[in-house]
Amino acid sequence: MNAQTVSIDLQERSYLIAIGRALFDNPLTYSGLPRAGSALIVSNTTVAPLYADRLQSALRGKYVNVHRVILPDGEEFKTWQTLNLIFDALLAKGCDRKTVLFALGGGVVGDMTGFAAASYMRGVPFVQIPTTLLAQVDSSVGGKTGINHPLGKNMIGAFYQPLKVVCDLDTLMTLPPREISAGLAEVIKYGPIADLALFAWLESNMDALLARDPAAMAHAVKRCCEIKARVVAQDEREAGLRAILNFGHTFGHAIEAGLGYGQWLHGEAVGCGMVMAAQLSERLGLVDAVFVARLRALIQKAGLPVTGPCLAATDNAGRYLELMRVDKKAEAGEIKFVVIDGPARASVRTAPDALVREVIDLCCQSA
Amino acid sequence: MNAQTVSIDLQERSYLIAIGRALFDNPLTYSGLPRAGSALIVSNTTVAPLYADRLQSALRGKYVNVHRVILPDGEEFKTWQTLNLIFDALLAKGCDRKTVLFALGGGVVGDMTGFAAASYMRGVPFVQIPTTLLAQVDSSVGGKTGINHPLGKNMIGAFYQPLKVVCDLDTLMTLPPREISAGLAEVIKYGPIADLALFAWLESNMDALLARDPAAMAHAVKRCCEIKARVVAQDEREAGLRAILNFGHTFGHAIEAGLGYGQWLHGEAVGCGMVMAAQLSERLGLVDAVFVARLRALIQKAGLPVTGPCLAATDNAGRYLELMRVDKKAEAGEIKFVVIDGPARASVRTAPDALVREVIDLCCQSA
Repeated sequence: MNAQTVSIDLQERSYLIAIGRALFDNPLTYSGLPRAGSALIVSNTTVAPLYADRLQSALRGKYVNVHRVILPDGEEFKTWQTLNLIFDALLAKGCDRKTVLFALGGGVVGDMTGFAAASYMRGVPFVQIPTTLLAQVDSSVGGKTGINHPLGKNMIGAFYQPLKVVCDLDTLMTLPPREISAGLAEVIKYGPIADLALFAWLESNMDALLARDPAAMAHAVKRCCEIKARVVAQDEREAGLRAILNFGHTFGHAIEAGLGYGQWLHGEAVGCGMVMAAQLSERLGLVDAVFVARLRALIQKAGLPVTGPCLAATDNAGRYLELMRVDKKAEAGEIKFVVIDGPARASVRTAPDALVREVIDLCCQSA
Repeated sequence: MNAQTVSIDLQERSYLIAIGRALFDNPLTYSGLPRAGSALIVSNTTVAPLYADRLQSALRGKYVNVHRVILPDGEEFKTWQTLNLIFDALLAKGCDRKTVLFALGGGVVGDMTGFAAASYMRGVPFVQIPTTLLAQVDSSVGGKTGINHPLGKNMIGAFYQPLKVVCDLDTLMTLPPREISAGLAEVIKYGPIADLALFAWLESNMDALLARDPAAMAHAVKRCCEIKARVVAQDEREAGLRAILNFGHTFGHAIEAGLGYGQWLHGEAVGCGMVMAAQLSERLGLVDAVFVARLRALIQKAGLPVTGPCLAATDNAGRYLELMRVDKKAEAGEIKFVVIDGPARASVRTAPDALVREVIDLCCQSA
């Protein structure tokens, strides 16, 4: 094992992110975890056939009973009904308060497993083993867990930290190209909001990342986790600063909800949403057109959409606005946008509806 | 307003319990709460017709929009399906992260509203306005929230503290006698586990409590809240000590689950469960028969059942044991019982199955 680590400093809830190859099926990876009678592996129909047996073998020396529950794959299954499959399994197997849950999969598996862990018997421990690039650089880190509601994404959930995050770079090798691109959206995100050097590095190394060069992947995952760890340590429950990690997500959530969850991948919606958010920043006089063009080109190079879908035949912009008003950052119906307001600096602010409409009209396909 | 207060000391999550008459419909009761655009009153079909209008009036000066959602009444509705009615209402009304939820009702309303508040947008503030004796002395205080699962009571939930608890003694006047008795089970509980003086006071004042004498009620509610506040402040997340508050609940939960939620009131099951737990304590050599007889007599005087229901025609004790193994306190299939092990002192321990079977056979109706 040759893992690098990033630590998340949250007092008694602090934990480590391990980043490297050949990690998830090595028993040593889990040596520091608390003992328990049972473990439950939560995975999905796509990931389980690839990795669940090897994880189960790695855990068997530590836990007498290693159970598993396999969820359907896809954002459209991030619901109460699917979450209940985890509770059903926990109770059917007689899992107690010390049972450790292992989330083996992408962001949807991680978010649902985390919320199940937060809620089962009012809280049991869990470990994140993200197998997608998006989950490794973003969703598995920082303790945001939850499910979707038909009226809004991630509307029901908890802030609940894992015991450990295991980013095994080898699992990225089996991802479909579309999933790599989706993950790169969240990688790119960290540039404009926090790190111009990363932004420039991505411009030079996008081909290596798309080719899944291990050294490039390791650098990207580690740098993103470091930035996220710093932000989360300062604002675990998103009272302020943490909201900047939602750059591109306000527009992106509208795309996901408007098309129906699962049509576009979350990362695809965020990629396109970042183009819109950058355009809005420019119209607010906060960044120049050169920066917006650079960001747009990088997103496009990553294989992501840069043009938004049409969500309504008449008044498409109105439909976007309607969907964005249920965003969690909204207050009293006022939409809050994460904007770029300087080199590698983001903030949260409102914007006139007319300006937002202009941006949507500019960035979307016509009906 | 002439309210007494009890404070719960939990650092940044500290809050006050106000106890008195004419509190819930007085705007001053809510003057210290944070401002927000919206409030949502959560109540049920029994309580809402009595009090929701008056609460809504009291809140109107503080919140521009005061919405309400009315749930079906009863333990059998403490489910995902009912919880979702709260989320549906919050999203349909466009409620944001600052929205304050007000739980107006008994333990079921309080537990579900608290869990909805813990989970909506990963956490919004809430206020408990318990209208039953049981909720005033127990369930509204201390931040335990949750819902039932078909395989176990309160299996899914969160530790999530309210901003304030408002115990309006006037609301106890409209309770059916059966609800008063059920609440007295939780009042009685505090005697054997923590306060012999309270135990003796209850023996002398049970008639006054059953007659709802305001001074007697005020004393009982305040003393119970004080004890609970002390225990919760020492062990918010039930790592140890707090489990003693579950005296009678291990047997009681088996009764509730075995009969089907809603057949016996929670307090009735706890009353009977305390008789069983006391008998078990005696058989373990921890208390004498005189104490058990005193407790049994007090529970009976409160109008509560002291004989357990038959849950299975053959091997009734086996059925109780099976149901108790899914209790949250159980570990690796070993049931943990709260026992009385001295005057006003409780602890958590295991017991031989044979001894538990004897107790159940002794305390239950035959098939």
